[in-house]
Amino acid sequence: MTVGFQGELGAFSQQAIRQFLGAQATPKPHERFDQIFAALQAGEVDAIAVPIENTLHGSVYANYDLLLKYDFAITAETSVRVVHNLIAPPGVTFRQVGTVYTHPVAIDQCLEFFAHNPQIRREPYYDTAGSVKMVMEQHSAGSTPAAAAIASEFAAQIYGGHILKRGIEDDRQNYTRFFLLEPKGSQPHGDSEGASAGKGSGRKGLAVRPWKTSLVFTTRNIPGALFRALSALALRDLNLVKIESRPLRGKPWEYLFYLDLLGRPEEEAVGNALRHLAEVADFLRVLGTYRAA
Amino acid sequence: MTVGFQGELGAFSQQAIRQFLGAQATPKPHERFDQIFAALQAGEVDAIAVPIENTLHGSVYANYDLLLKYDFAITAETSVRVVHNLIAPPGVTFRQVGTVYTHPVAIDQCLEFFAHNPQIRREPYYDTAGSVKMVMEQHSAGSTPAAAAIASEFAAQIYGGHILKRGIEDDRQNYTRFFLLEPKGSQPHGDSEGASAGKGSGRKGLAVRPWKTSLVFTTRNIPGALFRALSALALRDLNLVKIESRPLRGKPWEYLFYLDLLGRPEEEAVGNALRHLAEVADFLRVLGTYRAA
Repeated sequence: MTVGFQGELGAFSQQAIRQFLGAQATPKPHERFDQIFAALQAGEVDAIAVPIENTLHGSVYANYDLLLKYDFAITAETSVRVVHNLIAPPGVTFRQVGTVYTHPVAIDQCLEFFAHNPQIRREPYYDTAGSVKMVMEQHSAGSTPAAAAIASEFAAQIYGGHILKRGIEDDRQNYTRFFLLEPKGSQPHGDSEGASAGKGSGRKGLAVRPWKTSLVFTTRNIPGALFRALSALALRDLNLVKIESRPLRGKPWEYLFYLDLLGRPEEEAVGNALRHLAEVADFLRVLGTYRAA
Repeated sequence: MTVGFQGELGAFSQQAIRQFLGAQATPKPHERFDQIFAALQAGEVDAIAVPIENTLHGSVYANYDLLLKYDFAITAETSVRVVHNLIAPPGVTFRQVGTVYTHPVAIDQCLEFFAHNPQIRREPYYDTAGSVKMVMEQHSAGSTPAAAAIASEFAAQIYGGHILKRGIEDDRQNYTRFFLLEPKGSQPHGDSEGASAGKGSGRKGLAVRPWKTSLVFTTRNIPGALFRALSALALRDLNLVKIESRPLRGKPWEYLFYLDLLGRPEEEAVGNALRHLAEVADFLRVLGTYRAA
């Protein structure tokens, strides 16, 4: 199974692919998010792994928009613990580092590190793992100030970088949630995984993870429209775990809403809620039903 | 009055300052958003103009987070029409352009231009106007492929750039909404402006813009919590015009909610709604009351 992802080998997305599918999946790097969606559409890959939100940065807008532009099925979600490390070519010391290259989101997640080290210039780069690759390739021994990168330990290993400082993120509660996307109609992953995860623990209740359903809708632009839409869930005691709004193209200051709720359409309350939501929404699409991470 | 903004002279934020305060305000450029908030805190500027959302890109996360981190008052909002132009040093032709530098958000807003011109490489830069300044400074006559920038017509004028293509944004409905922030307790702007805007038109109803109030809150992490919070508005027929969620630091997969509603706390329904919201919210702060743009 070939799985497209954004970034270079060693990116956090590659870790997500391993969590989704184990070692049998072949990760295929791409430069940009729109390219991985296009690759799945063209059948060049069997699935794609996309970051959707991070506990420090928030939602990944570009991918919410691409979820709507394309019509794939979310078949799994997973959560990757993000640890950022300052990585430089072997021989470079911390005091020699003048510039740090990394993805803008990684910069945002290491603001305290930069505040405490004002001598270090921050430079955005398109990918964390790619920044290690680039810094390693462009390094000439002995030149100061030297360049460093911020990325995963895995990226340091792949490109032969040396970790100068470990765990420089502002907050340890740094997790990125990923979706696995496959062509429309694909079955959700993780049922067998859910059943086997509890082996030996004897705690059967923890073994099966709950279902989650993601959807997107628009409301009419009238007072109370969002409240009415949420009532479809609240009146049935359904648990809304995430809401995200995105601008509606061509209609300034109107919005699309993305919701994640616990449950699946086969359950009576969820099925009824979706029918109720369809009544009050101008547009509604279910993006997928999958096992909660 | 000195007003801090992010970017170089010629940035869209400078246009916002002109709309807020006219020509008497002195715009003061800064490299990053956190620096303008710190400058206002330190009293180095009298006010700051910050982009909060764009009709194509969505919300400016960093500024939502900074609104919470600092405790200023939103005293006005305005909406700036964003027109992106491809700008190069005089003498450079479109066919010679190999790389385009601009702010990542501007790249996102010109995706169709890049899709139709795959020979052009896109390079993120920290500011639109700054990308024009840099491209002009680093240009050496006759060198190809040449670099160009994407920015406002105003930026082209300031730095002597030549507009190769006008209006290359994907969507003409491209507006950025800005807040003017001043120290806590400052009075809202725009009352006199609202009263004078209708002069000569005779349409008094259009002259006074409605009030808007922005607030931020968290709910307890229980099913239906957001629904209950929104009921405080909906039960009083108040108009929720924007909702934005941001991750709650240190509590993975929990969220802060930012709301904009029409009205001001002095109105009975709004005052009651805020008291009701305070009952169901764990945390609530009013960020400001101002005239709607």
